[in-house]
Amino acid sequence: MYPTHVQIKEVGPRDGLQNEAAFIKTADKVRLIDRLSDTGLRYIEVSSFVNPKWIPQLADAADVLAQIKRENDVTYAALVPNMQGLERALAVGVDEVSVFMSASEGHNRSNINKSIAETFPVLRPVIEEALRAGKTVRGYISTVIACPIDGPTKPEQVRAVADKLFELGVSEISLGDTIGVGVPTEVDALLHHLTQHFDRDSLAMHFHDTRGTALANVVESLRHGITKFDSSIGGLGGCPYAKGASGNVATEDLLYLLHGMGIETGVDLHKVQQAALSMEQLLQKPLNSKLAAVAKGEQA
Amino acid sequence: MYPTHVQIKEVGPRDGLQNEAAFIKTADKVRLIDRLSDTGLRYIEVSSFVNPKWIPQLADAADVLAQIKRENDVTYAALVPNMQGLERALAVGVDEVSVFMSASEGHNRSNINKSIAETFPVLRPVIEEALRAGKTVRGYISTVIACPIDGPTKPEQVRAVADKLFELGVSEISLGDTIGVGVPTEVDALLHHLTQHFDRDSLAMHFHDTRGTALANVVESLRHGITKFDSSIGGLGGCPYAKGASGNVATEDLLYLLHGMGIETGVDLHKVQQAALSMEQLLQKPLNSKLAAVAKGEQA
Repeated sequence: MYPTHVQIKEVGPRDGLQNEAAFIKTADKVRLIDRLSDTGLRYIEVSSFVNPKWIPQLADAADVLAQIKRENDVTYAALVPNMQGLERALAVGVDEVSVFMSASEGHNRSNINKSIAETFPVLRPVIEEALRAGKTVRGYISTVIACPIDGPTKPEQVRAVADKLFELGVSEISLGDTIGVGVPTEVDALLHHLTQHFDRDSLAMHFHDTRGTALANVVESLRHGITKFDSSIGGLGGCPYAKGASGNVATEDLLYLLHGMGIETGVDLHKVQQAALSMEQLLQKPLNSKLAAVAKGEQA
Repeated sequence: MYPTHVQIKEVGPRDGLQNEAAFIKTADKVRLIDRLSDTGLRYIEVSSFVNPKWIPQLADAADVLAQIKRENDVTYAALVPNMQGLERALAVGVDEVSVFMSASEGHNRSNINKSIAETFPVLRPVIEEALRAGKTVRGYISTVIACPIDGPTKPEQVRAVADKLFELGVSEISLGDTIGVGVPTEVDALLHHLTQHFDRDSLAMHFHDTRGTALANVVESLRHGITKFDSSIGGLGGCPYAKGASGNVATEDLLYLLHGMGIETGVDLHKVQQAALSMEQLLQKPLNSKLAAVAKGEQA
């Protein structure tokens, strides 16, 4: 009934740290990523090559990629918004690039200042050039359940954007409940629709845990045969343009659920918990992570 | 597929406040319960008539019951461990009493200092006397998924205790994942077993959210036709005798999930959120509640 194996895509160093008010030192980012490379995670999104004016927290993307210790069996990915970003990412040998847009017009406009229709012509050359350079491309679609501006998103809206992104050459799409409002019945409706059109192995789910429903939504996704999930060490992350958005589901909480359900991930929960606690010390604030709190309690 | 209506049993004033280090003033408890009576909740567990030496935080159980404003359509319940407790509870006109024990020997011994077999003869006269006084009796079974001392609990252990409690005259059993370790596959195994033997309307689920799995476990329970759930305003609560136990699932988080899934509860989420924020101010510490955090964010 459930998949036997799930791949976790760690997005904390990008989606998490881009939302921290403070700039985390490059050396601290490198230390975190090197630590994550040693947990069994096979996919780490390390940074974003957006204009540093937009997200100064990740202005050191190139330095981070250049300085981390690259493990052979780990894919090190980064976000790129446009050709300039792609060129910077390719120059430091990124393994995979991710492009991003929204399923809803309101969020797409507020996040990248373009309509959905205007976005594809910008992404087309980025995807083409990345593929020419021998890289795979991942596509993020935000606000797949609801939009902070437009309200509920229809599954058909998500499908239309996904259709176009696959056509442009992305090999996988990450479906984001950006503001963390989704419940299992909505995830069911979305995936019931999408899995009729797309290979389920080409879909990943990206849940924010703003209202505590992320793990219930993960279980619903597993029922639909989804085997790829984005998560963030310590539950870091959010979206600076979506009010009320709190962090991604914590990697360690996701691991606890999956392992408890007998689903393999290849990731060492204890090592991830310890890495989360090191982030808590660095950021000097409590994490949105149940398993980090449990680990702290056991040490006390 | 899911039930259309669910009844929420609010246990915050008892299970929550018994785990606060500080004694909450009687007037503040009364104010909280009166506020909860105005949210649409139809069942509130207001206190516990255990020996005040064990749980000094609830030493004022009789005063609380005497001072609250009783709404006709709300059941005001309390925990009773023995005949002395029952007599105190009946003297102030409690509507329903709850008895409690564990599915595992280790937790039963550490919590009530008796073996499981030794516990029934203590509960028998309590249940009989309560029934004679015209009251219904609820039975709590703790550690239904796992025990902090004995490890995993078998569904057959839970069934054996439930069988005996029903035989003694309880009308409903609340099944507690006391240390909050359960995942949906375990809840599935437990309820698959129990619903073969017991009417599902006689079972309630009581999840702690220690590892973030409570709402996923609620959804699994709904799939088994369970329509009664215990929860705690602001996610207060735990178990003083079970290491690592953090709070019950927050009432407001449970409401958000259920309402989002189109399941009616009759409870006003906004009023519950506001009551939770008032508790946060009173306790001067952040709550284990996602929806309280969302409400705070919206006010900011």
